[in-house]
Amino acid sequence: MTRVTVLSGGVGGARFADGVVRALDADAVTVVVNTGDDLEHLGLQVCPDLDTVMYTLADLGDAERGWGLFGETWQAMEAVRRFGGPTWFNLGDRDLGTHLVRTAALRRGEPLSAITARLCGALGLRARILPMTDGACRTLIDTREHGTLAFQDWLVREHAPAVTRVRFEGSPPPAPGVLEAIAQADFVLLGPSNPYVSVDPILSIPGVREVLAEKTVVALSPIVGGRAVKGPLAEMIPALARRAASAGAIAAHYSALSGCGPDRGLLAGLVVERGDEEAVLGPAVLATSTVMRDRDDRLRLSREVLTFAADLARRGRGHA
Amino acid sequence: MTRVTVLSGGVGGARFADGVVRALDADAVTVVVNTGDDLEHLGLQVCPDLDTVMYTLADLGDAERGWGLFGETWQAMEAVRRFGGPTWFNLGDRDLGTHLVRTAALRRGEPLSAITARLCGALGLRARILPMTDGACRTLIDTREHGTLAFQDWLVREHAPAVTRVRFEGSPPPAPGVLEAIAQADFVLLGPSNPYVSVDPILSIPGVREVLAEKTVVALSPIVGGRAVKGPLAEMIPALARRAASAGAIAAHYSALSGCGPDRGLLAGLVVERGDEEAVLGPAVLATSTVMRDRDDRLRLSREVLTFAADLARRGRGHA
Repeated sequence: MTRVTVLSGGVGGARFADGVVRALDADAVTVVVNTGDDLEHLGLQVCPDLDTVMYTLADLGDAERGWGLFGETWQAMEAVRRFGGPTWFNLGDRDLGTHLVRTAALRRGEPLSAITARLCGALGLRARILPMTDGACRTLIDTREHGTLAFQDWLVREHAPAVTRVRFEGSPPPAPGVLEAIAQADFVLLGPSNPYVSVDPILSIPGVREVLAEKTVVALSPIVGGRAVKGPLAEMIPALARRAASAGAIAAHYSALSGCGPDRGLLAGLVVERGDEEAVLGPAVLATSTVMRDRDDRLRLSREVLTFAADLARRGRGHA
Repeated sequence: MTRVTVLSGGVGGARFADGVVRALDADAVTVVVNTGDDLEHLGLQVCPDLDTVMYTLADLGDAERGWGLFGETWQAMEAVRRFGGPTWFNLGDRDLGTHLVRTAALRRGEPLSAITARLCGALGLRARILPMTDGACRTLIDTREHGTLAFQDWLVREHAPAVTRVRFEGSPPPAPGVLEAIAQADFVLLGPSNPYVSVDPILSIPGVREVLAEKTVVALSPIVGGRAVKGPLAEMIPALARRAASAGAIAAHYSALSGCGPDRGLLAGLVVERGDEEAVLGPAVLATSTVMRDRDDRLRLSREVLTFAADLARRGRGHA
């Protein structure tokens, strides 16, 4: 049985992971999810990427809105607004059930990874979803105009003002199972997530790069035709890497990471949109149609990526 | 201007207070509310009586269900149920907005009385609603079968098993304004609330009995024709007072309280259902129609009670 571990941020990574889970035996898939975006809001511990992955794999996501739950309502937030409370971070009524149960369990001392396993079990998920850590690792965004902001303050409240640096505060150990899931995988896939704020936080967790260095790693480019499929990545690349947004910039970013293997950096392969392949130096390239408009797209793309990665893994990285 | 302070538990007291507020200038009314029933549930600080009074005075209550908000939905609780979380205490989606805002403010260190004033202001309320205390005073119910239970565990989770004793844990100071509101009132009205678990907690707060002893106090009997209008009071009276449930038992309960004035105990007057007056010994009695089926009932009853109490206050208690 092919064993695969996916590293994922929010929407893009979640959709890709959904394809992978359906392309393989779900039991063979582990999704390690960024928690650097997590926030405490209105006293609740909110894990946006973890929930997006969980909801997407359970097919509970709202396809039109692109985030949150299908059939969601907003009565609690309307009440919060009426009382003058903070409403910049929107929490749906159904979604609140997740945050309430999780926050109460965290307060009782249950680790996030155990809570996540419990919630996923209640949703009938067979793929394993792991937070990158049970500890605190906060993504901090240095901006020119607003100083340093926590991730959601930067993205949601301030609408992603220009970034000068991305940092991770805290260096907690990986959640139980993270290093093992990577070590035991036939290959590791990085979802089409923002490298700076979705994948790098996972790579910042102690031990993750070292264990990845021994594996065949394939990433999906979140940049398509010079533009981000979602979010502020296309503006971040020129600001942080001093080059135009392109699939090549994604390859260069992962190649430049330290501690990730001998020659070509972290990646054995990069999956890019057809036409974006020329800019890529270093990893092997699969050029295909990468934008996932529906569940069929996810499945088709995942199958192509799995074949590509399996082939690279077979050829090995010298030490695989 | 007549100044009135109402001591209240949940539904019955809230409905009566609503009548009083509409019968008088709302600015002249203070409602001091029991918080012995408060609970932390799913990490949220829930104040059932305070919210019932707030929602009722704001005319946001659900008339049919008798508690909670009109137009309420239950999506968050459905999600909690799905995740195997505790659902024995039902929290509506709109209601959750209140608990989220309040809990976040309490965690920031804002006192409950200040938060309550802010929430009431946001709802446009002019009458003043005060929690009996900003501190912790928990109503504990000793039962024969289940040992000692916190109030909501007893009432909601265990469906009010037989009581052997009611106790109050904690003796915090009254919230700012409570003693002043009582001292400055022309008279004080005890809503038709359960004496043991709704009014006694307020009377247990240090200083409250002493300042009440100087005032004309009129209570409304929550027992009508030997039965409680709502809740488990009719079963509690035989268990706790060794007599049948009656308006007379209510009078006797308040008369027996220590530290509440010289001769006839706490009460100058008791308002009872027509036909219940014979059992009452001690206070002056107003017999009328006391069950409030709609807002017209509340207003009519409140006007009768206000006239009765004003008359008793004019005649004085010797020291008024």
